[in-house]
Amino acid sequence: MSGEIKRRGLMLVLSSPSGAGKTTLSRRLLNADTGIVMSVSATTRARRPDEVDSRDYHFVTTARFGEMAAADEFFEHATVFEHRYGTPKIPVMDALAKGEDVLFDIDWQGTQQLKERAREALVSVFILPPSHDELEKRLKTRAQDSAEIVAKRMAKAASEISHWPEYDYVIVNGDLDRALVQIKSILDAERARRTRLIGVGEFAAELMK
Amino acid sequence: MSGEIKRRGLMLVLSSPSGAGKTTLSRRLLNADTGIVMSVSATTRARRPDEVDSRDYHFVTTARFGEMAAADEFFEHATVFEHRYGTPKIPVMDALAKGEDVLFDIDWQGTQQLKERAREALVSVFILPPSHDELEKRLKTRAQDSAEIVAKRMAKAASEISHWPEYDYVIVNGDLDRALVQIKSILDAERARRTRLIGVGEFAAELMK
Repeated sequence: MSGEIKRRGLMLVLSSPSGAGKTTLSRRLLNADTGIVMSVSATTRARRPDEVDSRDYHFVTTARFGEMAAADEFFEHATVFEHRYGTPKIPVMDALAKGEDVLFDIDWQGTQQLKERAREALVSVFILPPSHDELEKRLKTRAQDSAEIVAKRMAKAASEISHWPEYDYVIVNGDLDRALVQIKSILDAERARRTRLIGVGEFAAELMK
Repeated sequence: MSGEIKRRGLMLVLSSPSGAGKTTLSRRLLNADTGIVMSVSATTRARRPDEVDSRDYHFVTTARFGEMAAADEFFEHATVFEHRYGTPKIPVMDALAKGEDVLFDIDWQGTQQLKERAREALVSVFILPPSHDELEKRLKTRAQDSAEIVAKRMAKAASEISHWPEYDYVIVNGDLDRALVQIKSILDAERARRTRLIGVGEFAAELMK
């Protein structure tokens, strides 16, 4: 019987300014690849009309969030626009233990915190919008947003963009299909990275018999 | 005018024991991807009937090879089965300068030497055959080889296989199409690696204006 090569699950982080297409890309990646599952963040902010609890976020009260943070139940957590966001640990550890990969839609602060806790497993991708005009256009697209919110988002986008040098990969989302192919390639490639593979030594020994 | 993101050319090394399908995979990758060119090695061994000079190898005399080595015209060179093999520097440097990637079909010794000279640009992939039986079968397939040559090749294959831990990626070539997809993914992903990109800072500055 020949040895079987298995691998450690990896943590794929997608970060980008709001308006770079990250949410769409995440959904399409999850639909296209059955080996990766989404890490669903907990948040204290209000649910938007198009959002579903436990799919888009775990919507929790500020009190409950505080309890979870105090009990060290988060990989990372942060406060953005007076709302709290955090990545619950248990579902991620469970998925990795099953050999599944986990997708994270988090910002640079979350990525920094994840890096400290899971350097080996982490693969980080920063997605840039194709141009300033396109970014502005995409941020104005949400009809329910006030001008003040849009201005805040532009400032936040600039702040987020400044962190691109902290990521392993950088892609420009000028064409959604091309960007999706690039993310799938990164995932496929990182799955073949030697340091993630388990049992290659035994497999190679069988070959050399 | 928005800044343009360019990238440094990379050096993609494919190594494997003879009989793991590396030559076929190299040819198919070159056909599928116009952004990568083959590094053609120089060798002192005799041309085989199915080989073409300057496509498969630069076939040179032992004297000429010695002159090239003395003039430091090789990235790496080695002696295998009493024949000399080397990678000429100039075509590689020219291709990289044009932003092209370069594919290397070299063994572990050549890879080690390339690593010392071009650590940043290098991406190394080790290809394993799917099983001992399959490897043996593939090595016996060449009708013109004597039993002695086959035995030598099996020993050399085992020696080559033992170097898999020195590579960035490891793939098992059980299915040629799947292996090709994996190599293409590695190439596509590595092209998006932040450290290879040029001009992201300027591009990001335009976005943040």
